Amino acid sequence: MVILDEAGRLARRVGLGGLTIGSLATQTGMSKSGLFAHFGSKESLQLQVLEHSSERFVDDVIRPALKAPRGEPRVRDLFERWIAWDSLEGGCPLVAASFELDDQPGPVRETLVRVQRDWADTLATVFTSGIGEGHFRPDADPRQFAQDMMGVMLSYHLASRLLADAGAADRARRALDALLTAAA
Amino acid sequence: MVILDEAGRLARRVGLGGLTIGSLATQTGMSKSGLFAHFGSKESLQLQVLEHSSERFVDDVIRPALKAPRGEPRVRDLFERWIAWDSLEGGCPLVAASFELDDQPGPVRETLVRVQRDWADTLATVFTSGIGEGHFRPDADPRQFAQDMMGVMLSYHLASRLLADAGAADRARRALDALLTAAA
Repeated sequence: MVILDEAGRLARRVGLGGLTIGSLATQTGMSKSGLFAHFGSKESLQLQVLEHSSERFVDDVIRPALKAPRGEPRVRDLFERWIAWDSLEGGCPLVAASFELDDQPGPVRETLVRVQRDWADTLATVFTSGIGEGHFRPDADPRQFAQDMMGVMLSYHLASRLLADAGAADRARRALDALLTAAA
Repeated sequence: MVILDEAGRLARRVGLGGLTIGSLATQTGMSKSGLFAHFGSKESLQLQVLEHSSERFVDDVIRPALKAPRGEPRVRDLFERWIAWDSLEGGCPLVAASFELDDQPGPVRETLVRVQRDWADTLATVFTSGIGEGHFRPDADPRQFAQDMMGVMLSYHLASRLLADAGAADRARRALDALLTAAA
């Protein structure tokens, strides 16, 4: 849906907390009353954008990576697709919202928790497929790997976006290499 | 300053972007006009809270850790003090703001860039002291370590705060152990 894509782009720039029906009206040139009639409330707008971003994330990052061979190649494919996704204007909106809204109870936070748990589960499952393939040690801990790989991605996001550090992506790749080597 | 401590606590809960003179007035029971006379603008309030939080961070985390023996013990001390700091209500306000405001140009973002560069420099310098002590290989890259350790802390923050994952701290300690082992 075009309007949710616009709203998603706006959320990447101003944060999910800054995404209001008023700011979306300014951004799109649509009438505030029309948008209000469509979305009903700021919270409903934020929830729909979150769901929409998370569906885009599954379509653009997770689903294509699942076509890569199981185990290590799939981990690397997922990682490169995530880097590409986070390089879009404004960076991954789910990352920013997860830090912004982690202390604000309500349905938006609950949706973020579900999305991030699903993502951690995906990382752990893809890693586990690499144990089955003999790429990783049988006693390697998929939950540990998921948290570690999340860390590599989050510090990449911070170094590349906030600090505009040109070496961030290479360092993130070396960090992933180190994690995979340690797990092998 | 008591009012900046209050504002810092509020920023930990609602994010720096949600910190306004109005929300601070509600939180403290002080008059909005009095707070406006004191701070002048929302941006000035945000800047002062950021500077104040960053001074508290230096006092509570960095300065005491510099009393630990150079090298590996100092890295570990810094890490444990950071975990304690991030466990305070709302988590580290500098982390949340760094993800929230990374695409919003202006003096608040510039201050965040400076604070996070200083922090990355501190991590790199403390790591370098461990090369001097013979704890880490001479060819280990302090910038790589700084980005990696930042990742361990950021994914700990997300797993513990958003996901309420009770295993997050143990996993973060194992991740730091792995980084230090790989650098030795």
